[in-house]
Amino acid sequence: MEELSAALADFITESTWEDLPDEVRHAARRSLLNGFGTAFAGCRDVALDAIVTTLTPFAGAEAASLIGRAQRTDVMSAAFINAAAMNVHDFDDTHLRTVIHPTAPVAPALLAYAETTPVSGRELLHALALGIETACRVGNAVSPGHYARGWHITATCGVFGAAVAAGKLLGLNRTQMLYALGAASAQSSGLVETLGFMAKSVGVGSACRGGLFAAMLAKNGLDGPQQPLEGPRGFLRVTGDAPNGDDISGDLGTRWETLRNIHKPYPGGVVLFPVIDACLALRDSRGIAAADIARVTLYGHPLLAQRADRPAVETGREAQVSAQHAASVCFLEGAAGLDQFSDAAVKNPEVRALRERVFLQDDHACAVVGVKVVVELHDGRTEEFVVEHARGTDERPLSDAEIEEKVRTLSKGADAPGVDADRLIDAVWNLDQTDDAGLIMALARAL
Amino acid sequence: MEELSAALADFITESTWEDLPDEVRHAARRSLLNGFGTAFAGCRDVALDAIVTTLTPFAGAEAASLIGRAQRTDVMSAAFINAAAMNVHDFDDTHLRTVIHPTAPVAPALLAYAETTPVSGRELLHALALGIETACRVGNAVSPGHYARGWHITATCGVFGAAVAAGKLLGLNRTQMLYALGAASAQSSGLVETLGFMAKSVGVGSACRGGLFAAMLAKNGLDGPQQPLEGPRGFLRVTGDAPNGDDISGDLGTRWETLRNIHKPYPGGVVLFPVIDACLALRDSRGIAAADIARVTLYGHPLLAQRADRPAVETGREAQVSAQHAASVCFLEGAAGLDQFSDAAVKNPEVRALRERVFLQDDHACAVVGVKVVVELHDGRTEEFVVEHARGTDERPLSDAEIEEKVRTLSKGADAPGVDADRLIDAVWNLDQTDDAGLIMALARAL
Repeated sequence: MEELSAALADFITESTWEDLPDEVRHAARRSLLNGFGTAFAGCRDVALDAIVTTLTPFAGAEAASLIGRAQRTDVMSAAFINAAAMNVHDFDDTHLRTVIHPTAPVAPALLAYAETTPVSGRELLHALALGIETACRVGNAVSPGHYARGWHITATCGVFGAAVAAGKLLGLNRTQMLYALGAASAQSSGLVETLGFMAKSVGVGSACRGGLFAAMLAKNGLDGPQQPLEGPRGFLRVTGDAPNGDDISGDLGTRWETLRNIHKPYPGGVVLFPVIDACLALRDSRGIAAADIARVTLYGHPLLAQRADRPAVETGREAQVSAQHAASVCFLEGAAGLDQFSDAAVKNPEVRALRERVFLQDDHACAVVGVKVVVELHDGRTEEFVVEHARGTDERPLSDAEIEEKVRTLSKGADAPGVDADRLIDAVWNLDQTDDAGLIMALARAL
Repeated sequence: MEELSAALADFITESTWEDLPDEVRHAARRSLLNGFGTAFAGCRDVALDAIVTTLTPFAGAEAASLIGRAQRTDVMSAAFINAAAMNVHDFDDTHLRTVIHPTAPVAPALLAYAETTPVSGRELLHALALGIETACRVGNAVSPGHYARGWHITATCGVFGAAVAAGKLLGLNRTQMLYALGAASAQSSGLVETLGFMAKSVGVGSACRGGLFAAMLAKNGLDGPQQPLEGPRGFLRVTGDAPNGDDISGDLGTRWETLRNIHKPYPGGVVLFPVIDACLALRDSRGIAAADIARVTLYGHPLLAQRADRPAVETGREAQVSAQHAASVCFLEGAAGLDQFSDAAVKNPEVRALRERVFLQDDHACAVVGVKVVVELHDGRTEEFVVEHARGTDERPLSDAEIEEKVRTLSKGADAPGVDADRLIDAVWNLDQTDDAGLIMALARAL
């Protein structure tokens, strides 16, 4: 196999802000903004409480901010905690080919570092784009076998993204960048078995902290193997099956995986998005009330039923992969936000009753991102709505305004005085105008 | 597969000091003592300098000691650094079936914790024995496929040992112990590709710190999967091939892998030990001087040549797996310590010249732990020496006195005022008499 690690290290070290297409720069801004939003939503999760409580007694100088919290902590701990917060609800950006959530393991490392060593907004966005690109490319090279085997790809590949992104900010040379990849490879971890449990966030937090640590170690003289990715006992061969090197080193600088990274309009699995779109449209445009509904049938791609045919659910987390639950809350509440996928929503008797009247039917002609929803009403009428491309997927990405609105809504979840979503939104869109990107954290932390 | 994780968690939580056979207790003392010795040897390695330099700016309260150094740091960082120091030369204890070095990822977590929260010597030794046992049993269950695939088993399995050992000291209940295994599984990492580079120590340090972190997270309410080891996407299936559950849960409390953990008399691969024994014996008992030697032939198990037929070596690290180098330094210097496997020793022209006169020959009747060495002298004489069981292997374990002497010798490598090897040796042998085991670190740190 060609020298993949070296090619990647070369690309990262040589890349300049001017090399980045405008759309890649903007993709980085969108991912960062969306990441702040999901971190606001996640920062008060019980998993975060356990993590913050555990790290605090050992924390060093309070140099870095926690998104949505008033407490400050050291740079390494902040990277861990903010990464965990961004990803805990799986509401963060998603590279659909690999199912990697790339911003959570990458951005918090850069934000924490930027609070102690001034870097410009361009440097931070540039590093973020390169980190997302690296995580997704490494992920592509081991997909689909890697995730199928049981690797939580956001964490296992995220550590490489964080390492090169932090390495870029640290100004690593080519050799040091290669060594940073090596130190990252020694820390790559995360198991699918932990999904659905707080332990998941330990993998994601470790990826972010570990990547930053790897870059700093390389800067301080720690060496590593020449082929941490492609070597005979390197990451690709050990954790993947027949890796494709071109996924990593092909068309670097011209093909951007960063552009194939979507932002979710709703929490939960992507297969539910068309269902939610259709049910909200039926409720709003046809005036269908939940009480009128005799039966709802979802005609979808077979993957919909395989992943999400769950009429009975017990927890909010499980509801995030229940088509019945998604349809039910849409008709009842006219919304599909975190509140609608909470434990409380799952236990709501009205929601439960409606879930039992929702059925799935395979339609092999339907796209994964589409659905036809047919509603039979008690009065004998039938209404139907077809979605070809769900909101949030590659064909219908969220607009900038929609991401803004998502962040405004999620910022309320932080329940934090001092968090100013509108000023933060402005600051992210204009980040490339600032010489001190770390100042943005003052708008994201609580007073 | 039966409930392996739960069985292990049950065993760990229910085990008492009284349950431990005397020989297991003593094995824990020996491993701890040997670990201090190898940490003295490793604490000034360049990899350690890079790690200490990197962690220091983010370190919290200086509550824990670094073996052989004057600096103190926070508990988490001390666990990382001391683990890396103990293992950096691969001179630490070795469970031969798995090639796990179990004490390095486990003991430093306990020592660091014991400096902040008083625990008795019995509690510390007990936890250490359980941690070693767990690391080796998890390793057995994935061997030999795991290491062969490219996992650095000391790190990948060490994190589980550290988690349960720390969990024992923290007094975790059964459920929390299971969750600690889950948080450990999310952090299990380490690649064989990094061996021979400083990046190796990142994996080992992370295993120790990560295991301690996992136990603390579980104590603070972080939950995890019910089957972190045996689940469909759990550690065993993801990183091993056809795991054998009995290796983990069979005969818990009666069969002790902790007793199958050897202590190395020499740095370097175990296959070299009989060669070293034989060459030292020939030099000392037959008075053979290097200048007299025309040719040395090593008749060994085929594994000797497969692993260690390296007439030309460039670095000390490589010399640790060169049979030619090992034979050469034994005849020339009458010793086989760290100095004889240094970069300087490799470049010594006399050593190089003698290496070229050493040859290997397969002897299928020879045991892995044996060798026959035949020396042809310039005067026409031939001398030979047969070793059946090398020093340090299961059949000829180092005596307590030999481990003491090893620690005394290695303590000089720390080059640290204040390190008192003799007082430390006494303290380890009598550790179960103390109510505050953390005090032992005062004898291991520098002033």
